[in-house]
Amino acid sequence: MSKLTSISTAGVTMDSEEVRIRVVIDALATAHRIRDAHMLGELYDKDAVIADLAPPLLSRGLDVGGAQAWLDGWDGPVEVEFKDIVIRIHNDLALAFGLKRTKAVTQDGEVAEWWSRITLGLARTPEGWRIMHEHDSVPFHMDGSFRAAVDLVPGGR
Amino acid sequence: MSKLTSISTAGVTMDSEEVRIRVVIDALATAHRIRDAHMLGELYDKDAVIADLAPPLLSRGLDVGGAQAWLDGWDGPVEVEFKDIVIRIHNDLALAFGLKRTKAVTQDGEVAEWWSRITLGLARTPEGWRIMHEHDSVPFHMDGSFRAAVDLVPGGR
Repeated sequence: MSKLTSISTAGVTMDSEEVRIRVVIDALATAHRIRDAHMLGELYDKDAVIADLAPPLLSRGLDVGGAQAWLDGWDGPVEVEFKDIVIRIHNDLALAFGLKRTKAVTQDGEVAEWWSRITLGLARTPEGWRIMHEHDSVPFHMDGSFRAAVDLVPGGR
Repeated sequence: MSKLTSISTAGVTMDSEEVRIRVVIDALATAHRIRDAHMLGELYDKDAVIADLAPPLLSRGLDVGGAQAWLDGWDGPVEVEFKDIVIRIHNDLALAFGLKRTKAVTQDGEVAEWWSRITLGLARTPEGWRIMHEHDSVPFHMDGSFRAAVDLVPGGR
């Protein structure tokens, strides 16, 4: 049975769900590029537990207003690229993790660019896959400086 | 049918799997307390993708030697406590996330204590649940200092 047949007869296969998870991840990038926090908000469960680059430790539900203000703080699109994303799916639960590069221009014309680690927990709802947990972080330098390591690149130390 | 019956007849229920996930999380704490990196290593898949507090961005497989050296660097037990851990399980995939407090005494007699965000992706293997992804981080202060926020407490900002 071809995959196409399997999709059309069984309704949903693991492969088609992985495609759907990747659509959510692509939509994260698009929402950043067009700087639309409402589009971003539609990707999250309203009670999503979010560990972001900035404090607090955890927050509940995407703060759409705060996200829009952050997006608007840049001069032009916020480019987000995902790399080496591993996806695991069982029924209505999915886990995706890997690397994320963010690149944008400040109002002063400076290019800001950093790599972070991204983990997404997703739940399949009647409306589709929604992010129920997001963990986005950079490590920090253990040289006594406690500086956030925003200068790391994949494969480097 | 009681839960007990359901466990004994069906072999495994969601509830008993959640208990097993919590056993893994408790074992993480115990391995830190007794400072046994080999015990720690047994909890991880050999190809686990780990995002730690320290660089690099990601590493593959727990570095048991490095973990033992880190544990040995403290004077006495490394106390780890987990708080508000949410667990989601579907078949052979589990996701756990919440807060983690680490407390230990330096060789200089200073108490070091910090809260971090912890995410675990677990896979059920023939040998039991194993951590296939770990993401442990603190945010950083967005005041221009880029200081790692090791001073945050749950519920605070």
